[in-house]
Amino acid sequence: MALIVTGTIGIDTVYTPGGHAERVLGGSGTYFSAAASFYTPVRLVAAVGDDFPPDFMGTLGHFRGVDLAGLEVRKGSKTFAWGGKYHPDMNGRDTLFTELGVLAEHPPAVPGIFRDSRFVFLANTHPSVQLGMLEQLPQRALTVADTMDLWINVAKADLLTLLTRVDGLVLNFDEAELLTGKKNTVSAGRAILALGPRFVVIKKGEHGALLVHRDGVAALPAFPTENVVDPTGCGDTFAGGLMGSLAAAGSADSSFATIRRALVHGTVIASFTIEAFSLDRLKRLTRAEIDARAEQYAAMVRV
Amino acid sequence: MALIVTGTIGIDTVYTPGGHAERVLGGSGTYFSAAASFYTPVRLVAAVGDDFPPDFMGTLGHFRGVDLAGLEVRKGSKTFAWGGKYHPDMNGRDTLFTELGVLAEHPPAVPGIFRDSRFVFLANTHPSVQLGMLEQLPQRALTVADTMDLWINVAKADLLTLLTRVDGLVLNFDEAELLTGKKNTVSAGRAILALGPRFVVIKKGEHGALLVHRDGVAALPAFPTENVVDPTGCGDTFAGGLMGSLAAAGSADSSFATIRRALVHGTVIASFTIEAFSLDRLKRLTRAEIDARAEQYAAMVRV
Repeated sequence: MALIVTGTIGIDTVYTPGGHAERVLGGSGTYFSAAASFYTPVRLVAAVGDDFPPDFMGTLGHFRGVDLAGLEVRKGSKTFAWGGKYHPDMNGRDTLFTELGVLAEHPPAVPGIFRDSRFVFLANTHPSVQLGMLEQLPQRALTVADTMDLWINVAKADLLTLLTRVDGLVLNFDEAELLTGKKNTVSAGRAILALGPRFVVIKKGEHGALLVHRDGVAALPAFPTENVVDPTGCGDTFAGGLMGSLAAAGSADSSFATIRRALVHGTVIASFTIEAFSLDRLKRLTRAEIDARAEQYAAMVRV
Repeated sequence: MALIVTGTIGIDTVYTPGGHAERVLGGSGTYFSAAASFYTPVRLVAAVGDDFPPDFMGTLGHFRGVDLAGLEVRKGSKTFAWGGKYHPDMNGRDTLFTELGVLAEHPPAVPGIFRDSRFVFLANTHPSVQLGMLEQLPQRALTVADTMDLWINVAKADLLTLLTRVDGLVLNFDEAELLTGKKNTVSAGRAILALGPRFVVIKKGEHGALLVHRDGVAALPAFPTENVVDPTGCGDTFAGGLMGSLAAAGSADSSFATIRRALVHGTVIASFTIEAFSLDRLKRLTRAEIDARAEQYAAMVRV
């Protein structure tokens, strides 16, 4: 069933303890779409400038499940660019620079042919843009949003309005604490449920994720790996596996059991993303590899 | 099958963001024994001074599976005392004071009637004391040790010798990094296997634990809870559930599947310890409560 996402397409420069990558393809919409496309067709709504490299367009095209009809290439505009440096333990990072480019302009429009989308993911951007997107999707049946500390700090009113209109929220544990003032992750999750959503997924990087749902709480470990090259995009591909597998199942059921099962797909696909810079690992990933690792994961947690 | 532990019995003073407890019963041997006693009889080898409060002795006696024949009450000596203050997020703590007391004297001896013990847990103490204990247990079949940053820093040679003589090691993630120089938890675990043990369990507090075994790797989430009163003793009761359930099964099998299953018991019983100061929750815990939460845990992680 049709899954739509709006988010960023960016040019990333990433420094990790083990290496670096300069001006590679990144962005929340990019990572999300690539991951979700392993499960279901994805409609990407995003904008880039006319500086967007042709080979990056080729990479997007490589993920054949991604419909690029909602990708605007804007003449005279610059593509969003971001630079970051990871801490030695890879669990945190500092932003080195941000060049907003098209992100400082009007948001991309939802093409008419995408208006019947039922599964909606609002990747991290200004909550007023996320709200505007929702208004263009009258047939939405299951909506999940991501957010970040910046919007909690500078656009909290819009974010609180958004939270009354989504089924689920995905965010990092430090952002959950910032939003709610609660240091305990379960308590932070419950406080977010009180703001509107049926469920919240609190991401903890290498420590996995916590699902706090109106009908239960579940902790999911990350897939343990030594092969950690670049965590960039892991959260977005995690969301891509979550939403992609939900949309593939076709039902807008957001019960505790359904969301928990879908999070396993997010966990598994994120564990591939981290194995290389940019989308390098996802580009050569196969569905058979995903299924094999999902089997391994299931065996690991089986009690 | 007989399980023996040597570790500390202490008088703890604990400050948490939500409250404090002054001069309450604590110590690695205490917490371990109380937890393991829900699964199997436990032989405790430890020493206290003649200042040890009678009601603390009563609490130890409350756990009827704990054999106190190896508990020395030393005339003219002081019981070990420790004070600590937890950080606001409860994930770290600072030591406020340490009064070694009997810990600065000769280690307690293993009574003759305990010498046939087959399951051995060496709770955290100087590795030379742990080695001395091993020599008194010729029939040991499965030996697991805990350690801490102090011994890694000041007694590394003894610790390395110990690691060649144990089946398993349990330690915190920051201690695993300190011991191996590896920031990646899986890599740190593998580096420890190269030092001797068949398996290592790396504890991550609220983020659960990682088992790195010669035959596989598994991540186990902690039981998610809002009811966090005092983390003191969680690691020791975690080890108590691990070793207690292994000893109860009676086989010295340390296969990947067996250790992973036993770690679930450790995870569950630690989730009760954290709900009150000292051993207050364990004192009123029932096996039925443990089994019910183990069921909940199994359902939570089922894929």
